[in-house]
Amino acid sequence: MNLRMTGYIIGLLLAFEGAFMAVPTLTAAIYREPQLFLFALTALLCLLAGFLITRFKPQNKTLFARDGFFIVALSWIVLSVVGALPFWISGCIPRFVDALFESVSGFTTTGASILHTLEGMPKCMLMWRSFTHWVGGMGVLVFIMALLPVAGGQNMYLMKAESPGPSVSKLVPRVKKTAMLLYVIYFVMTVAELVLLLIGGMPLFDAINIAVATAGTGGFSCNPAGMPYSPFCINVITVFMFLFGVNFSCYYLMLHRRFKESFTAELKVYLGIIAFAIITITLNVRHLPMFRGTGEALMHSSFTIGSLLSSTGFATVDFNQWPEYSRTLLVMLMFVGACAGSTGGGIKVSRIIILFKNMHNELRIMTHPRQVKTLKMDGHPVDQEIIRSVNVYLACFFLIYAVNMLVLSFDQLDLTTNFTATVATLNNIGPGLNMVGPTSNFDVYSTASKCMLIFNMLAGRLELFPIVLLFSPATWKK
Amino acid sequence: MNLRMTGYIIGLLLAFEGAFMAVPTLTAAIYREPQLFLFALTALLCLLAGFLITRFKPQNKTLFARDGFFIVALSWIVLSVVGALPFWISGCIPRFVDALFESVSGFTTTGASILHTLEGMPKCMLMWRSFTHWVGGMGVLVFIMALLPVAGGQNMYLMKAESPGPSVSKLVPRVKKTAMLLYVIYFVMTVAELVLLLIGGMPLFDAINIAVATAGTGGFSCNPAGMPYSPFCINVITVFMFLFGVNFSCYYLMLHRRFKESFTAELKVYLGIIAFAIITITLNVRHLPMFRGTGEALMHSSFTIGSLLSSTGFATVDFNQWPEYSRTLLVMLMFVGACAGSTGGGIKVSRIIILFKNMHNELRIMTHPRQVKTLKMDGHPVDQEIIRSVNVYLACFFLIYAVNMLVLSFDQLDLTTNFTATVATLNNIGPGLNMVGPTSNFDVYSTASKCMLIFNMLAGRLELFPIVLLFSPATWKK
Repeated sequence: MNLRMTGYIIGLLLAFEGAFMAVPTLTAAIYREPQLFLFALTALLCLLAGFLITRFKPQNKTLFARDGFFIVALSWIVLSVVGALPFWISGCIPRFVDALFESVSGFTTTGASILHTLEGMPKCMLMWRSFTHWVGGMGVLVFIMALLPVAGGQNMYLMKAESPGPSVSKLVPRVKKTAMLLYVIYFVMTVAELVLLLIGGMPLFDAINIAVATAGTGGFSCNPAGMPYSPFCINVITVFMFLFGVNFSCYYLMLHRRFKESFTAELKVYLGIIAFAIITITLNVRHLPMFRGTGEALMHSSFTIGSLLSSTGFATVDFNQWPEYSRTLLVMLMFVGACAGSTGGGIKVSRIIILFKNMHNELRIMTHPRQVKTLKMDGHPVDQEIIRSVNVYLACFFLIYAVNMLVLSFDQLDLTTNFTATVATLNNIGPGLNMVGPTSNFDVYSTASKCMLIFNMLAGRLELFPIVLLFSPATWKK
Repeated sequence: MNLRMTGYIIGLLLAFEGAFMAVPTLTAAIYREPQLFLFALTALLCLLAGFLITRFKPQNKTLFARDGFFIVALSWIVLSVVGALPFWISGCIPRFVDALFESVSGFTTTGASILHTLEGMPKCMLMWRSFTHWVGGMGVLVFIMALLPVAGGQNMYLMKAESPGPSVSKLVPRVKKTAMLLYVIYFVMTVAELVLLLIGGMPLFDAINIAVATAGTGGFSCNPAGMPYSPFCINVITVFMFLFGVNFSCYYLMLHRRFKESFTAELKVYLGIIAFAIITITLNVRHLPMFRGTGEALMHSSFTIGSLLSSTGFATVDFNQWPEYSRTLLVMLMFVGACAGSTGGGIKVSRIIILFKNMHNELRIMTHPRQVKTLKMDGHPVDQEIIRSVNVYLACFFLIYAVNMLVLSFDQLDLTTNFTATVATLNNIGPGLNMVGPTSNFDVYSTASKCMLIFNMLAGRLELFPIVLLFSPATWKK
């Protein structure tokens, strides 16, 4: 393990986190909130610590796969712990485990909250909450790698560990240039949403919060009243939730005018799922008294589907009250999640496609043993290694799921609550059903369960392997 | 597709089913029940049809893998439809779909029932219900193959399709002789349980029913009062439920004095799961008012765990009322299921082991890419083909699960009911939680949902592939 290099990168990370805290500091200054001093001090301490640590430049910059996983896992833990400090020290969230839950939920773009109400929460704290989504959504380490020449050509391992999934490899040549372009897309899309929300009449503070939270597919709300916005704004958010759930390499290809290539199999299935869900759920809920007609049902169905499929987690209505068909389909969307290479969470559409294509292929081999075919996606053969990694991902997923169900069961909440709380955190969504539904919060759980859910959020954001490997004895053997 | 051969085997099957109906016919004769004539006639018609069909001996006895799957799937459907006729024609179960549900539930050793009460049900019908468990548990086609030289050396494909799982291959040499010995073990163990139950004071009729239902890991009850037996009898049933959930090749090896080999990794994990579940659930439920002390809690916990893990499905207490930890662990046991090569259902302990060993291996490769190791079980390397088939099995399992959740959701029952109804049928267990808990029955579902659950039971008993392939267009292509 290259510990010096690990320290150096953690130092850089602290410096960046300090810089990011300029945003809530500025917010506190504008609204003349008493937390101004706290945020400014934390930011300065982070910058100072980062500055001091990075003075010790490591001689040996070599990183192996194992270092990549380790650095990424550790970085996200440090990021979250430091991010929790303002909530905790200010007393806005009195217990540290709760502050950490909120911070992890922010950076991992989950949006699950332990807060009972946002009433009385200072605006700088709300802004910090939302802004962590934006930082977490873009993959903070990859962001640093894209800006600074830290590890020579070897930051591939970091990039792989922070945002894996079958699609990254496509963009491997000229990683750094590509990464920069992806961040430009991310930034431009965020600004575009912000502008549209302002046009729709949303107050600036809310618009900034919503825009950054949508971009990171986070889901923290910033308004004690929930989502009291015009239908235009609601629809803008819906569209952007779907857009931020798309694989960013599609946008990259579109910018290079490779339109045919950009319309990948994953994108087609993603759009198909959206269409199926919107049509059937709208039909299923249109008669409910909470809606005045099919139009309103369509708007809120689309919003909810966009929110849960893209793993954002905003809620305009209490979908927990919907009929069983809608509830069941929503839970299934929560499992599927967004496209690989997006800011969204979940198992990812591309993994589901590979899983089913492989299943189809293997079933075919059973009945027609002589017609062996290689599995293809978008015209390219899928490596056997990718199929294996999808299978291992799912095995890890269900192992974590099983552990969760047992740990959470001690809190005596019902099975559906625990089942959906697990998927809501592990897939970085936010709300679940029943006791963790959109009108409730995660403070219903004990401290032990909250720790389990914090583990889920971190594991989910890093697509399981870095966090699982951190806790696996085999990693630490020579 | 070798259709003549298919017809010939279906003919044999009908003849055997006719012969099996001697048991309820005899029961009706003993208890002088009016259904005597009906059973005798159905049995004779089956024998006659079987006799006539098997007059046409196929010239070409060649069977390919595809034929194996097809014949097995079709045989089980025919077996179930014919088995449903006595229930339906006698009017004991007025609707055909319900009669079919009961018959499929019997042959697939599920034990899920649509009957609200057993009060007033003729003894011959109860006996037929239980006896279908015994027939289904032993794998009726393999039984026929073991008795008759039907397909030369080619019945391997049938055997593989009817009872797959990683362990059959071990016993491949001298298939027929081995199969016969396994049936002797099955028969002897059934008789042993019967004798012990009679010693425990159970009435003969109940003892026969319970013994054959335990042997097949079925779970149909035969007493309107449930399980009103002595603690001795309850404990005998518990032990035999665990025993019938063990891989029969372990007994085979024990008989050949290969004790060390017989104590396989699967058996160890199976025993470990049992020990863990019994200890923690007993501790969790011992304070409940339904038990008079820890001893009684231990007895009923062990019974329930044996019942659900081995996929039998008997119930002595309403475990639906237990605390969430116990409920959750029971649901997890329902997913795991018994050992491969037993009469029990479920994903099977050996599949779970392979899944986790493979996961561990792949995670190791991620961090130590140069230390590639082959996966081993009981000292033998596990074929890559087996790992792939485990992964495909799981993909099929979750696809069927997803379809189920959507289909069942239209009946407006809660998520936990639908979730556990699916696992209870797909893994051939019987009861689930909430509305399909041990004090309830599956008549809460609509006809469409019942058809889905019938599909599950058949798919589950044949370990998914034969039934999935029957409905897959690729199978029917040239």
